[in-house]
Amino acid sequence: MTEKEWLKYLKKYLIENSCVIKSKNEDCAVIKLSKNKYLLFTTDALVEKIHFHFSYTSFFDLGVKLATSNLSDIAAMGGEPKWALLTLGSPKPIDPSWINPFMKALTSTLKKFETHLVGGDTVKSPFFFVNLVLIGETKNPILRKGAQPEEYIFVSRPLGESSAFLRLIQKKSLKDIPESVRQAHLRPEPEILLGKELSKQKLATSMIDISDGLLLDLWRICEESKVGAELWEDKIPVSNFATLEDALSGGEDYALLFTVKERDLKKLEKIAKKINRNLFKVGKIIKEKSLYLIKGTKKLKVKPKGFDHFKN
Amino acid sequence: MTEKEWLKYLKKYLIENSCVIKSKNEDCAVIKLSKNKYLLFTTDALVEKIHFHFSYTSFFDLGVKLATSNLSDIAAMGGEPKWALLTLGSPKPIDPSWINPFMKALTSTLKKFETHLVGGDTVKSPFFFVNLVLIGETKNPILRKGAQPEEYIFVSRPLGESSAFLRLIQKKSLKDIPESVRQAHLRPEPEILLGKELSKQKLATSMIDISDGLLLDLWRICEESKVGAELWEDKIPVSNFATLEDALSGGEDYALLFTVKERDLKKLEKIAKKINRNLFKVGKIIKEKSLYLIKGTKKLKVKPKGFDHFKN
Repeated sequence: MTEKEWLKYLKKYLIENSCVIKSKNEDCAVIKLSKNKYLLFTTDALVEKIHFHFSYTSFFDLGVKLATSNLSDIAAMGGEPKWALLTLGSPKPIDPSWINPFMKALTSTLKKFETHLVGGDTVKSPFFFVNLVLIGETKNPILRKGAQPEEYIFVSRPLGESSAFLRLIQKKSLKDIPESVRQAHLRPEPEILLGKELSKQKLATSMIDISDGLLLDLWRICEESKVGAELWEDKIPVSNFATLEDALSGGEDYALLFTVKERDLKKLEKIAKKINRNLFKVGKIIKEKSLYLIKGTKKLKVKPKGFDHFKN
Repeated sequence: MTEKEWLKYLKKYLIENSCVIKSKNEDCAVIKLSKNKYLLFTTDALVEKIHFHFSYTSFFDLGVKLATSNLSDIAAMGGEPKWALLTLGSPKPIDPSWINPFMKALTSTLKKFETHLVGGDTVKSPFFFVNLVLIGETKNPILRKGAQPEEYIFVSRPLGESSAFLRLIQKKSLKDIPESVRQAHLRPEPEILLGKELSKQKLATSMIDISDGLLLDLWRICEESKVGAELWEDKIPVSNFATLEDALSGGEDYALLFTVKERDLKKLEKIAKKINRNLFKVGKIIKEKSLYLIKGTKKLKVKPKGFDHFKN
């Protein structure tokens, strides 16, 4: 099965009812606790040689990345992360030399967002893997399905640098890769603050985090919302050292991708000022269920190409 | 580090405060949502060649076992399991021939206890591993720390059969092992019903599930409660095909081990009748912080020997 086929298959085992608002096609499961209180529930695993290599990833980096990949899923629903469980699978005996930097990075990244580790499980394993679970809360979960034609598409930061790292590390040693590119891939930051503001002020009509590439993640919003989109090539913020291809189809940017109504653009500007960030308007939602790239006067139909964890 | 050293180390990274009632030395993390509502939060992973071998474990067995090992942690706190997340790490492409029996076993075991899968993560991995997370709820979490001298110690079923399986499978083929022994190890059942009753009626003063052996798990209660215990050898329910050694130090029985005040013994009998089960009174809590095995008139001081996941 491809990743897409698997997600389709999985659906028949997932429940959605009056209590479980969302379990399918979302960044987190959404559970309604009371009228204004939703529990967000997500998990993300990182496996040695599949998601990272110790040749360029330190244990500190791994801790940051594990926390961020999970925090980013909470951010993508406009949630506040609260509690975490860690599963650690290790082939080598647990030793301060590597467990200290890992645990420090993990817990300090969580604490930045007032999130606390509350337990977990540790197992022997023939290879190294780490799995984090996060519980978050929100009054207003932002789903993928709310985008409507004529709304604007925003991304929260320049794209492609994390993907550029994976290209560069094939040819260069770690120290020869520019600092910003290393940081983007090895020490990414989740957009918790922005996600919370967008949820509180009910500005984003749909949202996702870019973990598998702009085109693919935008298409996920389109599919859930039953719409299409056009992207304006010259407005896409391509990171230094990244190519347009990196920005369109590279993974692990952990930027937020969201849609906003025209009448809310002013309010969005205020949020950007408040959190001292640039937000990038990169396109528009359209009725036709297709994806277009606008290049000056040219309009190119594009495929939602991105990272397939089972294929790559 | 041994498992004990690791758990001690881990503590400094875990938080306990007015909201997180318990994160250390418990079967689940306990989070207080409101005066009478506690969230239970637990995770358990199973790794190929460490926790199971496909030579004798079917994918259906694996699904049952993954669900049970997690459900049992919720049972041990007197909780009601509610929602689950699955992480699946697989070296082979996902294929109906193995994913069907696995998912069916997992979700049907969960559903027996009105628990639903709401999401998860799937990753490529050099080895097969599965990780489940469970959220449960309870009005009255039963912790390990409440045991007091003179209270009676109970176990909820005959012990040692799961451990006996691991001895027998070294010498015999699967089909030559008695059905009950196979079931005990490959299709264990969690004590959700009993745990819930003990919590509702506030009968158990402390509780744990026996996953690493009676002696070791009893000692965990003793340590948390700052007491000791004596076990009556002739009262310990040793399973058919199991040895006393299996019953005392074998793992993965998933029986409940709990303590009850003398004045509550009558009420406990009623519960046993209500759920149509035998409960076994196997000893007594004592003041002295030691573990004794009473053998007729002999009183033997014993060590809390059991299964250490890092050593074995």
